[in-house]
Amino acid sequence: MKLMLAIIQEKDASTLQASLNDKKITFTQLPTKGGFLKAKNSTFMIGIDEERVQEVLDIIKESCQARDQYVTPAIELPGSISDTSYPIEVQVGGATVMVLPMDSFYRF
Amino acid sequence: MKLMLAIIQEKDASTLQASLNDKKITFTQLPTKGGFLKAKNSTFMIGIDEERVQEVLDIIKESCQARDQYVTPAIELPGSISDTSYPIEVQVGGATVMVLPMDSFYRF
Amino acid sequence: MKLMLAIIQEKDASTLQASLNDKKITFTQLPTKGGFLKAKNSTFMIGIDEERVQEVLDIIKESCQARDQYVTPAIELPGSISDTSYPIEVQVGGATVMVLPMDSFYRF
Ligand code: NI
Ligand code: NI
Ligand code: NI
Repeated sequence: MKLMLAIIQEKDASTLQASLNDKKITFTQLPTKGGFLKAKNSTFMIGIDEERVQEVLDIIKESCQARDQYVTPAIELPGSISDTSYPIEVQVGGATVMVLPMDSFYRF
Repeated sequence: MKLMLAIIQEKDASTLQASLNDKKITFTQLPTKGGFLKAKNSTFMIGIDEERVQEVLDIIKESCQARDQYVTPAIELPGSISDTSYPIEVQVGGATVMVLPMDSFYRF
Repeated sequence: MKLMLAIIQEKDASTLQASLNDKKITFTQLPTKGGFLKAKNSTFMIGIDEERVQEVLDIIKESCQARDQYVTPAIELPGSISDTSYPIEVQVGGATVMVLPMDSFYRF
């Protein structure tokens, strides 16, 4: 068995929940706060057989991978030369995953 | 030293707290959410000498083991053939415990 | 890579955050509750290269080490022999740090 810890953006949490439930993979979810940006994120703890680690990595990657998104800023950026607000590209999502060894696993 | 992670039902948390305090076993408690049912649960982090792992497992088992309970539903179930509400058996409690190796432990 | 778990007092959390940010060390923060005293504390999860474990230990020690502080009680202690409130010494801070081995680490 391995313990997988996945730190993901809050906004991707429900997608990941649904994908894990689909595959009957149980998880425990912790409310967490990120580093630099202090953004709210979510940490999933998943105890899993080593044979399924790659499968879980694929699910996390598919649900949470960093991607670019266009957003139109509601307010003008300082230094902008016109009144018109243009869409800008921002990165959303992303995941950090740690796989830890486990000595033993019990269910009572 | 080992790190023990015990995921238990919220309703069993105070019993487990009292039992661990009794044995002078320190712990840190994390509010967590379960998988399938999204039920509120609680995760205990316990850093412990390997010689005491079995003792802690016994305490968790005693405080949290899954057991059946009879409850009388407040509302009628669909398809029931009478007005009378009968007690039904439900399972409560239960614990998932993971024991992880630790390289080193410090107290400042 | 190693996973470092640091359980510290809530009141030292912003100092530790600033010190880790200074060194560009990313972390994830979990709201936690302590054992005996049920005091609110904070757990930092830090995934770090083994070469930097000692550096992180030094940062935690500097930000959070247990120290004595004088406080003047607002109310009289039972059994005190006068009206005058004297400053008393109390211990604040302190940290518990666990270093765990890691099999693998991913960023998506
Ligand atoms: Ni295994
Ligand atoms: Ni040991
Ligand atoms: Ni390494």
